[in-house]
Amino acid sequence: MTGTVTLGEIARRLELQRVGGDPAQSIRGVATLADADSGQIGFLANPRYRAQLDSSRAAAVILREADAVGMSRACLIAADPYVAFAKVAALFERLPAANPGIHPSASVDAGAQIDPTASIGAFCVIEAGARIEAGAVLGPHCIIGRDCVVGAQSRLVARVTLVQDVRLGKRALIHPGAVLGADGFGLAFDRDHWIKVPQLGGVVIGDDCEIGANTTIDRGALGDTVLEEDVRLDNQIQIAHNVRIGAHTAMAGCAAVAGSASIGRYCLIGGGAGILGHLSLADRVTVTAMSLVTHSIRESGEYSSGTPIQPNRQWRRNAARFKHLDEIARRLGAATKEDPQ
Amino acid sequence: MTGTVTLGEIARRLELQRVGGDPAQSIRGVATLADADSGQIGFLANPRYRAQLDSSRAAAVILREADAVGMSRACLIAADPYVAFAKVAALFERLPAANPGIHPSASVDAGAQIDPTASIGAFCVIEAGARIEAGAVLGPHCIIGRDCVVGAQSRLVARVTLVQDVRLGKRALIHPGAVLGADGFGLAFDRDHWIKVPQLGGVVIGDDCEIGANTTIDRGALGDTVLEEDVRLDNQIQIAHNVRIGAHTAMAGCAAVAGSASIGRYCLIGGGAGILGHLSLADRVTVTAMSLVTHSIRESGEYSSGTPIQPNRQWRRNAARFKHLDEIARRLGAATKEDPQ
Amino acid sequence: MTGTVTLGEIARRLELQRVGGDPAQSIRGVATLADADSGQIGFLANPRYRAQLDSSRAAAVILREADAVGMSRACLIAADPYVAFAKVAALFERLPAANPGIHPSASVDAGAQIDPTASIGAFCVIEAGARIEAGAVLGPHCIIGRDCVVGAQSRLVARVTLVQDVRLGKRALIHPGAVLGADGFGLAFDRDHWIKVPQLGGVVIGDDCEIGANTTIDRGALGDTVLEEDVRLDNQIQIAHNVRIGAHTAMAGCAAVAGSASIGRYCLIGGGAGILGHLSLADRVTVTAMSLVTHSIRESGEYSSGTPIQPNRQWRRNAARFKHLDEIARRLGAATKEDPQ
Repeated sequence: MTGTVTLGEIARRLELQRVGGDPAQSIRGVATLADADSGQIGFLANPRYRAQLDSSRAAAVILREADAVGMSRACLIAADPYVAFAKVAALFERLPAANPGIHPSASVDAGAQIDPTASIGAFCVIEAGARIEAGAVLGPHCIIGRDCVVGAQSRLVARVTLVQDVRLGKRALIHPGAVLGADGFGLAFDRDHWIKVPQLGGVVIGDDCEIGANTTIDRGALGDTVLEEDVRLDNQIQIAHNVRIGAHTAMAGCAAVAGSASIGRYCLIGGGAGILGHLSLADRVTVTAMSLVTHSIRESGEYSSGTPIQPNRQWRRNAARFKHLDEIARRLGAATKEDPQ
Repeated sequence: MTGTVTLGEIARRLELQRVGGDPAQSIRGVATLADADSGQIGFLANPRYRAQLDSSRAAAVILREADAVGMSRACLIAADPYVAFAKVAALFERLPAANPGIHPSASVDAGAQIDPTASIGAFCVIEAGARIEAGAVLGPHCIIGRDCVVGAQSRLVARVTLVQDVRLGKRALIHPGAVLGADGFGLAFDRDHWIKVPQLGGVVIGDDCEIGANTTIDRGALGDTVLEEDVRLDNQIQIAHNVRIGAHTAMAGCAAVAGSASIGRYCLIGGGAGILGHLSLADRVTVTAMSLVTHSIRESGEYSSGTPIQPNRQWRRNAARFKHLDEIARRLGAATKEDPQ
Repeated sequence: MTGTVTLGEIARRLELQRVGGDPAQSIRGVATLADADSGQIGFLANPRYRAQLDSSRAAAVILREADAVGMSRACLIAADPYVAFAKVAALFERLPAANPGIHPSASVDAGAQIDPTASIGAFCVIEAGARIEAGAVLGPHCIIGRDCVVGAQSRLVARVTLVQDVRLGKRALIHPGAVLGADGFGLAFDRDHWIKVPQLGGVVIGDDCEIGANTTIDRGALGDTVLEEDVRLDNQIQIAHNVRIGAHTAMAGCAAVAGSASIGRYCLIGGGAGILGHLSLADRVTVTAMSLVTHSIRESGEYSSGTPIQPNRQWRRNAARFKHLDEIARRLGAATKEDPQ
């Protein structure tokens, strides 16, 4: 939807309690408290923006009941204001029109199956054995390789590559430049040179997954690389062959998972974090940004590595000492053990 | 230009003082001191290459006045030899011929505006509401989504994706695989699963920015992601939604900036460095390679994190001690406080 | 080959000793010990899977002679079981049919040379001066820029970009989204703004190299960026201008090498590792994952940086102490020196 909707209609559709305001008021979008004008809805999810409530010109503000106490302005009460905001914002999202049919410039193999309600954009290539299900939308320049499946209602924004044997679930959302199903990095060292270990598996993506721009997910060597449902990957993430990621896990930009690692459900992997191969992470593990996981983690909780940012001159002195930390500890051990007290 | 030019002409065009040499000598390119032959110009910017001055066969050498003292060879005197070298090298750069017009294979929506002096390459897709300004050159396979603007004299080398609502300033240079305007990574957790927070903002890129291969710059959630003028991004950089980068800041490859962070002007961000969300960096902050910035930085200067590279066996011992560093410090504190001296 | 082959034929072709089993048994693929069925071949390379030998339903197992002692099941004896497995697996790899010729949708400049045995996929762009040698296969959407060479029997899976002056050796294998020959990140600071240093060199890739999805290899500033033969790069690796990588070196995903660094032969660079500019690494250097190399390494061996992963609460305390490590060391030094013992 890209037009307007009334405040009353928004409250009704999202089952939010409206306090004050004119239900007939026309709303044309959402904004932050600071930026909203009288045709937009704002929200208060993070208490540190509370001070902006009074000055905000928003037509109404989505907030928790407790935050609405004593407010004279129009409010929409929500148990989780950020979730409610996301749903309101969705009313105003301009998605590209999905015109069913195949763009005349696309190159579609006779052996591909394309649902008549799917939309195939300019210069797409659909290879033999591929199947595009109902309501799927492929933007321009997508490549759907041999024996790949694009599940119903999925949206490949543009320039997505599914190399081979990639099966997407329903409602996948994949951003430009993502490459799924490229060969895993499998090498065997034959005396004095490498030989390639053929990569024969596929990629299986559950329903409701989102995959960011320029993210790569390799096919399995033997067996598949698997993302369960509702996995959310940001941009430039690297998922190696035979990795398994549990449902509802989210990974921030530039994180990387090495081969055959297995990540639990409801994990949160920070930006630039790395997980070595063949490890297991339990459910509900959080790894902070740019940490490197070098052993399996059996208990849920938050994990970190690295050192704090410091002015370079101080950091240099400390870092130089790190090179001798074992010696420092041993000297301390000797000193304190021999201490007469 | 790809032909030759005389030494005298070079001195004249770049306003460099020529000392020695034949102004009529034909020059066909630039090279390092070590590699230059008698048809090429060399340069001395870094004093550690000074020893190569004598043996270099270069037709002339660009250098500082102080370095030219006592030299018998042909020189071009420059206050900043590296800057002068860059300008001389530009004389010999072979840029692709920009033939105005639209390649017959391109797919251009009737609702796009394309300046007649712009050049649109093979298989480009230009969507409704897009505007391509005078002298812009789009190499093959570019996608210019809805309501995007490519500023005058910009060059999109090849395979650049502007997803939606991306406005490039003048003279932008964007390398292949870059994706601007993909959705930011916005999620709200709704009891037991994620829901997507619609990303409704755009990307605004100032004049004279360069953006490297496979770099990604997401559109804002609400409001825009902004690069001010003369921002220089290397390859595989990730810029999340609503980040703001000040003018003249340069970031090396694989750096990443999380959502809503704000980076000052004239900053230098090292390769692989990370900046967490919602932080502010002052002007003229340098972050060294692979450092992680976890709090705002209010003062210009150089900042670092991490530990030094060591032979693995030594590193293992020190790293094991790091796990107990707090205990070590407390034991030392106890020992030295209780020390009778 | 994608059909079946007999067990006897496999032993014969790969010169493996067969112990037991029916040479006429039909084999249709390979699998892990755990997953293999009676039509598949398994392998035992890593001793920790030895326990699976007895229960595996594999038609035959590739293993070392010592591991076959006392086995009653069918075996194929190999000096290096993983290498033998790789070769057996290759018998079952389904490579895309390479139909010689140019897809009618491709855009090929009249000034390009294409061997009649090469295969050019849909929507490829081949520019003037490019040369595609015998048996090379370009999947859909490849761009081969001016004066690039694709060596004989190379395979560009799909959507590979060779920008300009890139010369691939024989049997290159390049995965989707890779960008070779984009401009290096060369900037000169001219008083108050950046000017671009023209990038005039190329990229030279030796025979038998593999380059992963969305990896970027920049052209040299002056002179070339070079990968010697049999270099293996995983996904999302960044190789800056004028880097040189020695033969048989392998780099895991997301590693990055800054400008003019030189890496030896037979090196192993871990995932996410970084190597600063202008450094040299000797032959047979291993750098562990996410380590940062900040000085040249003259001796072969394994090198690391970073700190171990820990529960965040413990890590925080240790990390806070790291900020004062120099002071801690100095206090310890003072305490132990002044110690009366």
